[in-house]
Amino acid sequence: MNLDRFLEQNRQRHLEELKEFLKIPSVSTLPEYHDNIWQAAEWLKKHLIEIGLKQVKTLPTEGNPIVYGEYLENSSKPTVLVYGHYDVQPAEPIEKWRTPPFTPTIKEGKLYARGASDNKGQIFTHLKAAEALIKNKALPVNVKFIIEGEEEIGGPSLQSFLEKNQKLLKADLCLISDGTWVAQDLPTIVTSLRGIVYLEILLTAFSRDLHSGIYGGNVDNPIQVLAFIINQLKNREGKILIPGIYDDVRPITKEERQELKRIPLTAEQIQEETSAFQLWGEKEFIPIERKGLRPSLDINGIWGGFSLKGSKTIIPSQAGAKISLRLAPKQKAEKVSQQVRNFIEKIVPQTVKLEIKVMVSSNPYECPQEHPGIRAAKTALQKAFGKEPILAPQGGSIPITEYLDRILGIKAILMDLGQPDDNLHAPNEKFNLDNFYQGIKASIYFLQGLTKFW
Amino acid sequence: MNLDRFLEQNRQRHLEELKEFLKIPSVSTLPEYHDNIWQAAEWLKKHLIEIGLKQVKTLPTEGNPIVYGEYLENSSKPTVLVYGHYDVQPAEPIEKWRTPPFTPTIKEGKLYARGASDNKGQIFTHLKAAEALIKNKALPVNVKFIIEGEEEIGGPSLQSFLEKNQKLLKADLCLISDGTWVAQDLPTIVTSLRGIVYLEILLTAFSRDLHSGIYGGNVDNPIQVLAFIINQLKNREGKILIPGIYDDVRPITKEERQELKRIPLTAEQIQEETSAFQLWGEKEFIPIERKGLRPSLDINGIWGGFSLKGSKTIIPSQAGAKISLRLAPKQKAEKVSQQVRNFIEKIVPQTVKLEIKVMVSSNPYECPQEHPGIRAAKTALQKAFGKEPILAPQGGSIPITEYLDRILGIKAILMDLGQPDDNLHAPNEKFNLDNFYQGIKASIYFLQGLTKFW
Repeated sequence: MNLDRFLEQNRQRHLEELKEFLKIPSVSTLPEYHDNIWQAAEWLKKHLIEIGLKQVKTLPTEGNPIVYGEYLENSSKPTVLVYGHYDVQPAEPIEKWRTPPFTPTIKEGKLYARGASDNKGQIFTHLKAAEALIKNKALPVNVKFIIEGEEEIGGPSLQSFLEKNQKLLKADLCLISDGTWVAQDLPTIVTSLRGIVYLEILLTAFSRDLHSGIYGGNVDNPIQVLAFIINQLKNREGKILIPGIYDDVRPITKEERQELKRIPLTAEQIQEETSAFQLWGEKEFIPIERKGLRPSLDINGIWGGFSLKGSKTIIPSQAGAKISLRLAPKQKAEKVSQQVRNFIEKIVPQTVKLEIKVMVSSNPYECPQEHPGIRAAKTALQKAFGKEPILAPQGGSIPITEYLDRILGIKAILMDLGQPDDNLHAPNEKFNLDNFYQGIKASIYFLQGLTKFW
Repeated sequence: MNLDRFLEQNRQRHLEELKEFLKIPSVSTLPEYHDNIWQAAEWLKKHLIEIGLKQVKTLPTEGNPIVYGEYLENSSKPTVLVYGHYDVQPAEPIEKWRTPPFTPTIKEGKLYARGASDNKGQIFTHLKAAEALIKNKALPVNVKFIIEGEEEIGGPSLQSFLEKNQKLLKADLCLISDGTWVAQDLPTIVTSLRGIVYLEILLTAFSRDLHSGIYGGNVDNPIQVLAFIINQLKNREGKILIPGIYDDVRPITKEERQELKRIPLTAEQIQEETSAFQLWGEKEFIPIERKGLRPSLDINGIWGGFSLKGSKTIIPSQAGAKISLRLAPKQKAEKVSQQVRNFIEKIVPQTVKLEIKVMVSSNPYECPQEHPGIRAAKTALQKAFGKEPILAPQGGSIPITEYLDRILGIKAILMDLGQPDDNLHAPNEKFNLDNFYQGIKASIYFLQGLTKFW
């Protein structure tokens, strides 16, 4: 049967299957969803068998299971490892969703649900492509799937999983679709990803909260110490002030900037997406550079003292913050983590006890633009979406890309299938149906194209 | 009957009555305790009638009711207005209490409960003193009691209540016991109190939380803006940086400092009470000056972004803080509040929307040391506790003192009866039984002494 016809005839079924997958609230960041994580893994396992994959199994890790399946057509052909994740971000704040996050809802050609784009919808395109090729006996390469359940918590089990399963996962390259295009309707292939270091700091000044009238003026205040520390991490020009932090950040050449300028990431677009009053960052860099090729530092959360309604006149005993850095290509997560720790330890005053915990630490990733996988992805996206795709650095972090490079010696091809307004990690996450259906075709074209470029 | 014998015979009853009063969780800062506020007021009303006061009633305000009672012995004698409050601070964090906060418990001569010292225990000494004098027909002056229910929320209704009831409350002076001694076992009369300005600020940068990988580097972060603002309010030498803030703070003369040095408020004592690693404040002032005669600025609470367990990679949409200043004698609350507002409005960057709410605003208070009430209080404390009391400025705020001065034209005599380790506003609040029983006597001696000094 003609592949296009097969896809056409199965459109409704494909969508219903994805909706079923999206109904499972497989939130990995909150312990109360533990059972749903397993439910999602079991659902996937069953589905991988149904679409014709072999050796399907859920592989245990120290945390959430990884779902595996393969179809090895011919040992002379290249082998593609397809990676995705079945876990999702929490839906909170629930009240900001216009439709229930775990009741997939279609409105104006868009499928709304937590995980619709990140990553259930995107990994599903590759499953549907493999199904079409297998069922029509047209698979041009060998495929292996690994779909994990800890991406949203920084993938703590993934590295050791890759180390232990090097033989099983042996492949020539990896295909990942887990991001969004740099602009509306502009297919994007990501050539680099930022790393991440995420820390939590806790300052303790007293064993209990103090009366601010009786002691105010004679003791320090841990919230003010925290503000003092935070204020020294980055200046109001967007420059990170931690000594040595820019040591390994590679400069951007004139030629590279010329290329980067072709990426239409405008200040206006970012403002529209974020509702920010104005853009804010390092003045000497353009938005795409600040997003993909420069490190950034953010406070992700802060707490201390009395934060309910009303007024409580205390000097709080403790204050804490979550601090994270996104790392530019070439930076080393472990080194940065140590630099941050050393700096905070150096500037913290003796009026508080300091505790620092490293929560996540992951290196950045880069893929050469001449890689055959990049060339196959360009052709595939062009053909599926009718528009020349762009190569771009990305600001997010996908730790597995660096593990694959280091442990398995293969490059990850980051063929994104999401639109920039997909609301990842936010209320009202969605996936355009057009991206879903054309994404399936793009996946087929990619696998077909590989035989040409490899 | 001999007064001492009366007190001796009624020791157990007095304690049981106080325990009953303490069982009512009359927390004014949290709406869920609204019914308990009324319960406490009704309980007090009944009790005031029982002890022999006349004209007893609960007077309505815009908020919580004020309990009134009087005993007018002789119009040629001075009239003392006794003030106290029946509302208490929240007990949170509950888990840090060694005994339940609303189950009064005696351990080693101390009565543990929320409100034990602040203010149920202390106002109760005066009620028991009045009862003893009335029942033994020995009341040497006229007394009027007002016991309010909004002290812990800054007494929003009190000022207009005093304005509307000037005739009812007409008196020659006011007696208040609502604080703690400057050192263990050192009876203290407070000659000045600090004012307070309490604000809440809220910064909004985006309509939703953003992905820190996709947007980190291109947008500002409201928590970092908040830290930037907080950091400019006060420097690391303890100096408040808001322009004009010290304009009305009166200098401390050499003679005054000599007197103040007699108050044994040592750095060691404050450290022991607070468990602070070290004292911290304006170097050129001694601890008692920093506590009572200098303004202080504290952040009472801060919030923003993700503060639960784990790591969520967001740039938060909002961040907020509760900020308060204690005002030195002569400072004007309204002026300070405007100075803080102007300064924050001036330094806030355009990347956020700023909202400022003034929650509490109250002037400082001072009483001349030669006032006859001060002399009566000195004698009373000396006689009851066997130790020469000390005159001291205090760091807390009792807004009514300034209202009484301004509206009724009378001075408040602040005869504290709490020990410095009473844990006001904190877990494990307590009142020493010795302070309770000798406090009753001190109240009697005060009223008796007044006839001599007036």
